[in-house]
Formats: sequence, structure tokens, C-alpha cells
Amino acid sequence: MSRILTVAAAQLGPIHQADDRASVVSRMIALMEQAKMRGADFVVYPELALTTFFPRWHYEDRAQADRWFETAMPGPQTQPLFDRARELQIAMNFGYAELTPEGRHFNSSILVDKTGRIAGKYRKVHLPGHAEYDPSRAHQHLEKRYFEPGDLGFPVWAFEGGLVGMAICNDRRWPETYRIMGLQGVEMIVLGYNTPTANGHSSTETLADRLFHHRLSVQAGAYQNSTWVVAVAKAGVEDGHALFGGTLIAGPDGKIVGELDHEEDGLLVHACDLDATRFGKETIFNFAAHRRVEHYGLITSRTGSGAPLGRAV
Amino acid sequence: MSRILTVAAAQLGPIHQADDRASVVSRMIALMEQAKMRGADFVVYPELALTTFFPRWHYEDRAQADRWFETAMPGPQTQPLFDRARELQIAMNFGYAELTPEGRHFNSSILVDKTGRIAGKYRKVHLPGHAEYDPSRAHQHLEKRYFEPGDLGFPVWAFEGGLVGMAICNDRRWPETYRIMGLQGVEMIVLGYNTPTANGHSSTETLADRLFHHRLSVQAGAYQNSTWVVAVAKAGVEDGHALFGGTLIAGPDGKIVGELDHEEDGLLVHACDLDATRFGKETIFNFAAHRRVEHYGLITSRTGSGAPLGRAV
Repeated sequence: MSRILTVAAAQLGPIHQADDRASVVSRMIALMEQAKMRGADFVVYPELALTTFFPRWHYEDRAQADRWFETAMPGPQTQPLFDRARELQIAMNFGYAELTPEGRHFNSSILVDKTGRIAGKYRKVHLPGHAEYDPSRAHQHLEKRYFEPGDLGFPVWAFEGGLVGMAICNDRRWPETYRIMGLQGVEMIVLGYNTPTANGHSSTETLADRLFHHRLSVQAGAYQNSTWVVAVAKAGVEDGHALFGGTLIAGPDGKIVGELDHEEDGLLVHACDLDATRFGKETIFNFAAHRRVEHYGLITSRTGSGAPLGRAV
Repeated sequence: MSRILTVAAAQLGPIHQADDRASVVSRMIALMEQAKMRGADFVVYPELALTTFFPRWHYEDRAQADRWFETAMPGPQTQPLFDRARELQIAMNFGYAELTPEGRHFNSSILVDKTGRIAGKYRKVHLPGHAEYDPSRAHQHLEKRYFEPGDLGFPVWAFEGGLVGMAICNDRRWPETYRIMGLQGVEMIVLGYNTPTANGHSSTETLADRLFHHRLSVQAGAYQNSTWVVAVAKAGVEDGHALFGGTLIAGPDGKIVGELDHEEDGLLVHACDLDATRFGKETIFNFAAHRRVEHYGLITSRTGSGAPLGRAV
């Protein structure tokens, strides 16, 4: 029996502040319909797929940002997306800003299976940026202001015939993200992002540098855990602020099997052989044979960088 | 005050079984002298620099492999290397097979400062390969037969004006290696290797594939911990068995600043600005600000891959 999961990475172009949810959902449905026609089982959208990347805006009163959050999933504005997915029998993943009944805010992502059921939820663990207005930066990146860090870890789910996990944007730069899912046998990681084209701390870092770091992180995570990684951008210029594209799919040997070369709405479709993850998992990355956890304690016992441990011989 | 550490990656070409230690030490001294002339403070040699890569040979009686091990460091055959380094006031790192007075076997590496003092020792943690003869492989890789896993962790030392750590060969494919040293503020990781040009498990993996995985692992480790990485090969065809080259230096932004394109004895010299590691450590990889150790437990609590943790939402 085949273990092919055909995935469509559904990049979204810019979403401006003035674009309402209905217009975004229509764009997502259009991509979903194309994905289905191209044979996809699973369509993957970016982080914060329903709105502009609002953490670039500083609201003195945090509650003013609540208009970018969803209080129900599906809610009235996202129900059409769920309905169309169920009609088409296509699974999906997308990111959104989650406001819980208790008033907590997360940068979240969900897996929705072909029957329209929410099968898994992830809340972004590695929030980049800062919590207060920072005049030293070329642009603001206030994720630490508007979200709390995820509280669900990095679970992996049995989903549509494979073992699937989620990560969001900055999570992809942290090898811990991939390893925790690798230790659950993950076969595909879906990972949406909104990444500014400029580094707010550096005027010399180029778009090419930024794309290099993006690819390097994703490819290393794929290779070192022998898993597919589907990385999907929200791209283009939102109200004058540029986000890069670079939507790509990396195979379990770390190689990129396809990448989009534009910053608009668009699809990258690939038939992913989940059994291709076996070779790496059974040989060079056979964790049971090769990992030495007795030496890894610092990874969990230290958060920040501390004193060197080397002693005289 | 300058924080430049000029490093010379000293690749060694093949060492055959018939080549004695004295001939290898002369080659190492020749490279050291060139390194000094080119302004190097620190010369870095490969893993198991003094001998052929003997774990490719199966000895029914393990003790037959003891002839490849050093029982003292320096010993009579390596003393000239230490003497010349002290005369030239050049620091060095090299790998060797260590047989302790208690009869324990390790794949080891040492830091020797400009005064000739052994400042640090590392013993390889991630031993690849297998312990028993495996007829299914195109070639044997018996590191698990001849060595026990290192028992010293991954320390970092204050060394020649920088914070320096060591890793060996297969360690470079494991993100834990770099992270543990990153958590000690490492500024330069020196990493020797002997890597077969062919994958013993796969007849389709090419040299280009192998070099891609090598670079990917080293570059990701450098970037994600904002550190210099100096990766040094023993290369070329040893008694009919090919090892790849690819000696390279990666900067703290993950980019390769130089790479050798041959498989003979040779030098790659670079003036490494240790302060260039600050930018990454203070911004995107500010560990104290961004790491979330409460979610990393599986990295130390599980060795091998286990059950997925995803639950229904």
C-alpha cells in the first residue's frame, strides 16, 4: 500500500490591514480548489493566514490588537473554508491568532483532516522579537507583546496516513523544534511563516542572506530528523512592509524538491513518499543506536548561555 | 584590543596502514610551519590524525587494533610535534586514538596551547557505525567496536583568547553537539573528520550528496549557535578506501568563508573575528530571551524515537 501524501504548499501574497477575513478566505479557497485539481491530499497555508502580519504594529493598548484574533475555530468567517475542504475531501493546515475564552493569546496552527475535524493544535513556542516599542529597530516585531509562548509542546499526530507535526516561523531556526518531533517519529513537519525581508537589527543583511538562513534551517531540520518539511510563506509587501517568499518543500535527505520564486498567492505541489523517511531514520539517524542523552543535560537545564565547563586536563 | 584568532585548517591526505607515525608527524610539522608563516595562531588537524582510519578494518580480536592507539600524549613519536609547536608558539588541535592506563579506548581530540600545554581533552560522543562485522555493508565502519562513547561531554575552554570547543566527525551531524557548546558561549568549534566517500548502506548516494550533508550540518550548527566552525578532513584514498575532503571554515552567520578543493595535505587559513559571533548571540539566537526549555524534555528523556504525543483536540 502506498504511503504517498501529496501536499500543496499554498503561499499567500500580501494581506493588508484593510483586507477583511472574507476576502482572505476566498483566496484560500481558490488555492484549495487548485490544489485539489492538482491531486493534493493536504493543503498547507502560512502562519497568521487570515490577517496581515499585525505584530509589526505597536498598539499602546494591547487589547486593540484583539481584532486580529479568532475567538472560535471555525468561526463564522472561517466556516466556508472548513465547508469547502470537507466537500473537496482535502486535509488542511493553517495558522491564526487564537484568543481563548480565558482571554489568553497564542500564535496557533491547526491540522484539519479530510472530514473537516480539527485533529491537532499547536501554539508557537519560539516567539521572536520583543514586547515593548523599540526605537533602535528599523521595524517593530512585537510577537512577545501580543502572544504568550505556546503551552502545548511539539506533538506529532497520526494524520492522513502519516506522522505529522507543526511548527511556526521562528521555530524553524531552532533545532530543538525538529528534534522533539523527530523523537516521535515525525514524517512531515508543516511550517508556516511571515518573515520580514529586512533584519530590523541590521542594515547590511540582504534578502539573499535571509533566504539562505531560512533554507539552511529547514534543510538541516529535515536531514537531521529524516523528515519532510513543508515551509509556507506569507509573502510580498503588506502596507509597505516586505515579507519574503521562499515557500519550499525539503525532503528527508535535506534537499529542496521545489521552491516558489515569487511573492504572490501560489501553489507548490509535491507527492511526498513518507516511506522515504525510513532510510535516514534506520541508518545514520538511528537515534536509539547513536544518541547519547547522558551528555545532553545542558539543553534542558540551561535556558541562556552560561559559563564554559572546560577544566584543565 | 583585537579578538582575531587566525586559524589554519590542516587537511591531511591519505595515511596508509604502512605509513608509520614518524612520517605522519613530519607531514603535520610541515603543515604547521606553513601555517605559522601564513600568520596562524592555531593549527587544526583531523580526527585520528596520526594513523590510517583503522575502524574500516575488522579484527576478530579487538586487541589487534591496539597498535593504532596512543598510550601517552605526548609520547615518544608525538613529542616532536609538541616541541615544534612550542618553538613556533602556535596552538594546535588534533585527534588520535586514546588507550588509557585502565585499558579504555576512546576516539579523542586535544587542545594544546602556545606553550605546549594540553589545555583540553574531548572524547567522541557520537560514534557511528557498528560493533560486529556486517556483511550487508559495502564497507565496514567499526567505531562502535574499537571505542567506547566519550565520557567528558562537550566542554568549552577559555583558550588562546577565545571560547573554544571540540567535536569529532559524526558529532557534526547532531545538533545537540553544537547546542551544548553554544550554551557555554562557544566562539569556535574545531572538528576533525574521516568520512568515507561512499555510504556503506547506499549505492546511489553520491560524493556530491555526501559533501552536501557535511556542509549542511556544519553550516547549520555554526549559524544556530553563532559560532565559527573549523572542519578538517583526512582525505583521499587510504589503501584503496576513499575519504572525502571538503575541509572548510564556516562563519557565525553559517556561511562558508573558505573550502579546500582537493584531497591532499593542504592548508586553509582564515583570520576569525571572534567578536563577529556577538551579533547572532545577542539578537535572533539570544538564548535567554527565546529558548523554552520547558518544552525540550524529550531531548534528554528519550534516546530513540518513540510514540507520537499528539492527542485529539
